[in-house]
Amino acid sequence: MADKQSVCIIGSGNWGSAIAKIVGKNAAADDKFEDRVTMYVYEEMIDGKKLTEIINETHENVKYLPGHALPENVVAVPDVVEAAKDADILIFVVPHQFIRRICSTLLGKLKPNVIGISLIKGFDKKEGGGIELISHIISRELQIPMAVLMGANLASEVADEMFCETTIGCTDEVQGPILRDLLQTRDFRVVVVKDVNSVECCGALKNIVACGAGFVDGLGLGDNTKAAVIRLGLMEMIKFVDVFFPGGKINTFFESCGVADLITTCYGGRNRKVSEAFVKTGKTIEELEKEMLNGQKLQGPITAEEVNYMLRAKSMEARFPLFTAIHRICVGELKPADLIDCIRNHPEHIYNL
Amino acid sequence: MADKQSVCIIGSGNWGSAIAKIVGKNAAADDKFEDRVTMYVYEEMIDGKKLTEIINETHENVKYLPGHALPENVVAVPDVVEAAKDADILIFVVPHQFIRRICSTLLGKLKPNVIGISLIKGFDKKEGGGIELISHIISRELQIPMAVLMGANLASEVADEMFCETTIGCTDEVQGPILRDLLQTRDFRVVVVKDVNSVECCGALKNIVACGAGFVDGLGLGDNTKAAVIRLGLMEMIKFVDVFFPGGKINTFFESCGVADLITTCYGGRNRKVSEAFVKTGKTIEELEKEMLNGQKLQGPITAEEVNYMLRAKSMEARFPLFTAIHRICVGELKPADLIDCIRNHPEHIYNL
Repeated sequence: MADKQSVCIIGSGNWGSAIAKIVGKNAAADDKFEDRVTMYVYEEMIDGKKLTEIINETHENVKYLPGHALPENVVAVPDVVEAAKDADILIFVVPHQFIRRICSTLLGKLKPNVIGISLIKGFDKKEGGGIELISHIISRELQIPMAVLMGANLASEVADEMFCETTIGCTDEVQGPILRDLLQTRDFRVVVVKDVNSVECCGALKNIVACGAGFVDGLGLGDNTKAAVIRLGLMEMIKFVDVFFPGGKINTFFESCGVADLITTCYGGRNRKVSEAFVKTGKTIEELEKEMLNGQKLQGPITAEEVNYMLRAKSMEARFPLFTAIHRICVGELKPADLIDCIRNHPEHIYNL
Repeated sequence: MADKQSVCIIGSGNWGSAIAKIVGKNAAADDKFEDRVTMYVYEEMIDGKKLTEIINETHENVKYLPGHALPENVVAVPDVVEAAKDADILIFVVPHQFIRRICSTLLGKLKPNVIGISLIKGFDKKEGGGIELISHIISRELQIPMAVLMGANLASEVADEMFCETTIGCTDEVQGPILRDLLQTRDFRVVVVKDVNSVECCGALKNIVACGAGFVDGLGLGDNTKAAVIRLGLMEMIKFVDVFFPGGKINTFFESCGVADLITTCYGGRNRKVSEAFVKTGKTIEELEKEMLNGQKLQGPITAEEVNYMLRAKSMEARFPLFTAIHRICVGELKPADLIDCIRNHPEHIYNL
């Protein structure tokens, strides 16, 4: 029999803590896994006490997931090398701006044959422009194989154990089922697909579409128009992946990471909300980020800009009129009211026999 | 040069009148078509005056699309044979319970080489149980080729000329572009696909899924769960078409008739709304139809029952756990709260490598 697999969660925010509830419980219940799950926690002082100590004594992440008991076998560790050194499976769930520094800290300190799974949504900026997938960065920096997990998974609802689905992208036929066993519960249903890049791209590109949905809401354009914008957004997501990360499968976009996550993001979600306010108030995205998000950056406009850089570099803006219009509206080059004119003659509106 | 094509719209309700605005304008502007478009109007007396006379004098359907001017070249005709006898293109847009009678009235009275396009959503009951597609009934009864048009097209928004997309299913490579030219405007964007059966099935099956979405809303289960139910509903729609109308293309479900119409129906729409009330009030569907719809029948539960008949006949209920659960909830065999338990182990949740 193989040795038990040891698991480390790198990150302890809202989503990381919600996943720790699942992973801790599954690791304790399944003989394939070591009971003890480490969770790397960026140390902070909360009312004069270390967050790691609070978590390890009270089994609650009082700062990022208050009101939820974490399993007692989840151990908070303030040193990322210490947390990760014995792990066979690393779960990456930190804000994406920290990922390069964490990788350089971990380089050379990991067990051989360790695998990683990224729960981080969004792209990273490539030096010189364009985008890079987070899982590609981790894989390259640490020289480890990477899977990803994306889906219609609002952290608070997952923590509340409300039923949902998620998608794991994993090319390895041995590791895929192991990751599923680690992450699936009766309320968190996993589908594993091999098409890793498509799964990861969905998690970033949907935020661009959500800005378009928000503009439609702000303009008061009705349900038909919103459905058309969401659908054309989905078609541009598929096309984008086909051009820049070829070899994917169309069926991946029917998974939770695809249509399901897109739907929730375009009806709920902060990108939709701020974009609606952008139209109604006439303020800039930066002003609204200050007012509505405490200064946090909105993902959609950033992603739209990075994607636009790639499209311009290939002279492909005309094939992505919705992504292009959304970017131009965000940066003030176009008015929101121009959105529909940009997509009237969408390349999807061809005789499609 | 070929003769000009003459167009007849069979039906003059809300959707029929909205389409008459488009078709009348396009026919007048495009040399391919006869200017004069006939519209079969079921005669009614409105304040002592015939509805056809009102329409032909005021160019407004005061009963079913008040406030909208119809093009003057659209002529209301109270006799369906008279309206249809010179037509090369018949647009069917009547409530589906009238279609068999209209066909028997028209049989033998049409020009040779006439083609039809059905805008009628929903299935018809087959004698002895199960379903039949409306376009198949028309095609068989009248011995004419049939296309269909379905999409995220709320009639009131189309009449208001708000931007949207639609899908035409047409197998004929000559007629497809002609139908597109007849129906497309700058605000009503048409994509033509060959996969007629899938397009038509989407228009009926989405109403079952909308009941599921309404149950989720009524149960207060959150955005993740609703997205999962909508996605699993879409997967069952695809599977249903694959089993009962094989030969379709997966891409059709990405068209307006597929994801787009499904989304609007599951967020707006009467099936969602009544199903939410069903959970919250504990009343029966029949009671709610009386209270909320003036006694009109809700499509979702009827379609769920017809579909369930077909699934049972093939012993396939287990492969369609969502459709099956929705039907059982509608008829009171299951409680709404049981919905999620029925889909936890959905066949889609398999190792999908």
